Amino acid sequence: MKLPKGYRFAGTACGVKTSGAKDVSLVLSDVPATGAGVYTQNQVVAAPVINCRSKTPSSSLRAIITNSGNANACTGEKGIQDSARMCNLTAETCGVEPEQILVMSTGIIGQFLPMTAIEQGIRDSVNSLGNSEQHFLESADAILTTDQSRKIANRSLNLGGTKIELVGMAKGAGMIGPNMATMLCTCLTDAKLSADQAERLLRRAAALSFNQISVEGHTSTNDTMLLLANGAAGGEELDKQQEQVFAGQLNAMCIELAKQIPIDGEGASHLIEVSITGAASDAEAQLIARTVAASNLVKTAIYGEDPNWGRIVSAAGYAGPPIVHEHLRLELNGFTLFDAGEPIAFDEPAASATLRDQSVARIELTVGDGPGNCTHWTSDLTVEYVRFNSEYST
Amino acid sequence: MKLPKGYRFAGTACGVKTSGAKDVSLVLSDVPATGAGVYTQNQVVAAPVINCRSKTPSSSLRAIITNSGNANACTGEKGIQDSARMCNLTAETCGVEPEQILVMSTGIIGQFLPMTAIEQGIRDSVNSLGNSEQHFLESADAILTTDQSRKIANRSLNLGGTKIELVGMAKGAGMIGPNMATMLCTCLTDAKLSADQAERLLRRAAALSFNQISVEGHTSTNDTMLLLANGAAGGEELDKQQEQVFAGQLNAMCIELAKQIPIDGEGASHLIEVSITGAASDAEAQLIARTVAASNLVKTAIYGEDPNWGRIVSAAGYAGPPIVHEHLRLELNGFTLFDAGEPIAFDEPAASATLRDQSVARIELTVGDGPGNCTHWTSDLTVEYVRFNSEYST
Repeated sequence: MKLPKGYRFAGTACGVKTSGAKDVSLVLSDVPATGAGVYTQNQVVAAPVINCRSKTPSSSLRAIITNSGNANACTGEKGIQDSARMCNLTAETCGVEPEQILVMSTGIIGQFLPMTAIEQGIRDSVNSLGNSEQHFLESADAILTTDQSRKIANRSLNLGGTKIELVGMAKGAGMIGPNMATMLCTCLTDAKLSADQAERLLRRAAALSFNQISVEGHTSTNDTMLLLANGAAGGEELDKQQEQVFAGQLNAMCIELAKQIPIDGEGASHLIEVSITGAASDAEAQLIARTVAASNLVKTAIYGEDPNWGRIVSAAGYAGPPIVHEHLRLELNGFTLFDAGEPIAFDEPAASATLRDQSVARIELTVGDGPGNCTHWTSDLTVEYVRFNSEYST
Repeated sequence: MKLPKGYRFAGTACGVKTSGAKDVSLVLSDVPATGAGVYTQNQVVAAPVINCRSKTPSSSLRAIITNSGNANACTGEKGIQDSARMCNLTAETCGVEPEQILVMSTGIIGQFLPMTAIEQGIRDSVNSLGNSEQHFLESADAILTTDQSRKIANRSLNLGGTKIELVGMAKGAGMIGPNMATMLCTCLTDAKLSADQAERLLRRAAALSFNQISVEGHTSTNDTMLLLANGAAGGEELDKQQEQVFAGQLNAMCIELAKQIPIDGEGASHLIEVSITGAASDAEAQLIARTVAASNLVKTAIYGEDPNWGRIVSAAGYAGPPIVHEHLRLELNGFTLFDAGEPIAFDEPAASATLRDQSVARIELTVGDGPGNCTHWTSDLTVEYVRFNSEYST
């Protein structure tokens, strides 16, 4: 995996996770980087989100320090001080300013961070920084909580003769018990971006990727997506056309990262891709896609390998935006189940077999002849999901 | 059970349900009754809903004919004709006009009604009409589909010396597989109401009862709630004050009926009652209540007997309406878990024990110091729910 120039990485274990797994992740840029952040829409916001929000966008960021195992959420004034302390110690140990450090936390809600352990973890991480792929992987592993697997992606591109690398790491497998929250994503590039560019690019990428996934639709208190661009690849700030090319790659990488979350949803057996076309606007398409994706009946039907058009069509029907009946058309894994507003005969066993044999369910729904469209990804609802989220008691 | 005067009832089996259970229900008023209807908000609307909508409110209704086992939804022009035929045949056999008949259907979506069987069922029902409690119970049973139990309630009141009876029957256990849809409710009274009064009273009752319940939030294509008032008790049309007293009883009866649905939700082990207070308005309280009630993480926590305040508070946080942190307070079955915006120490095993020992989970959440409040009822999300909705394949 090619990494962007001018970054070092570390992932260490300080004991917040009782399993002994890595729980402190550090990313350091050798030079000041521009950076942007997109944060949870939840009004109950964790301390690290408050900290980051006050610092982005920026043109002089140096590092992102993250702990997993404890979300530092619902922890009041002490939580705010603990997040500040994480930044202060990272800054001090790296020889930079606290304002140059972003901080993320993920894990259990409502408990104070064990600061003695965290502080040791920060020192250990600074001491083990390196720019190898192994260092990167360890820092990506250290942000995980109940994830079954590491979530990384990268892209390479050539802009005006300059070779640019783009890499991302993410975590998340639903908002999960006991109170294990949080989607986190860090994107790093050695391209040169203005703070405005970084902000604009990240917002658009978030809209197309992490804002289009759900496991159970529970927006956590800690969701954070960050982008750093340190310009270490050389070259000038991206011009309009280069920005477009870069945006295409950033968006694709973020979608690749985002889809790994519902795939990894607790107990999930299928990734469900809901594509809506023909809506009056993208916003209306999004509302319909989210409503279909949020339906427990749709999610259990996919789990049950049941090409159940009635649940999908009726979910679209209560989403809110107008449905043009004569254009209403539904395909599931390529089988047409509903057309021109009416159910049609289809090979049910064959359609069901695609759900048995594939781990992806593609729902394509046309709701009119408008220009609006949207693709949303979610996971199915399984017996294992309910077991996981009910048996794990605080 | 006391029944309102001037109604006769029948419930018969015509074979739509392969189990042989009753599937045609008829309610006939001996004299023209005023009536009102409240219908599904789903844009994909079943034929009988289209039929009823065109006839209510009215001052001259005579009967409600209902079949279960087939929803007559997504059945196009033929479905519309079949609903009309049900009304025509009922009218003809009872010697009244088709415009005086309302029609409801519930069951599988996307299949045409087996009209030969239905027609026989209508004739049999007309022939077996009677005004005994047994007749009423049979007609209440004939509207059920996957319900585990009959859903009925009644109230008696005295208005200006006139003894008034109010009775209701309902069905529904979620929007359920395969495509088994529909909440239905019929309320009957022998009070004398104007069509306007009936409409106004029914809307308010629906808002407080059936619009405040969810199993998985899937609004079906057939949801219908009807009120008939035939004035057979004697007396004049209700005046303002009498209307208020009547409304109180109607609302209470409808809430009693509505709560029977999530209690009967497939695989449900708990009725969850979510009460929101302190919101800026009732509408905002409702949005928060619905969001908390719709959270799979809240629903699985209750199933898992887990007093998980984090899931409840964070669901309120993403509902949309403003939360005043310093007023944020949560009680679960009388235990205070969160107060003044912060989690507080509580006896976890004791709180959990109330969820183990009771089938009701009472969530009381204060979100500010405003006048808005709302109570919503839902069921928990269990392994059995997922099994039921995934294994039952079309």
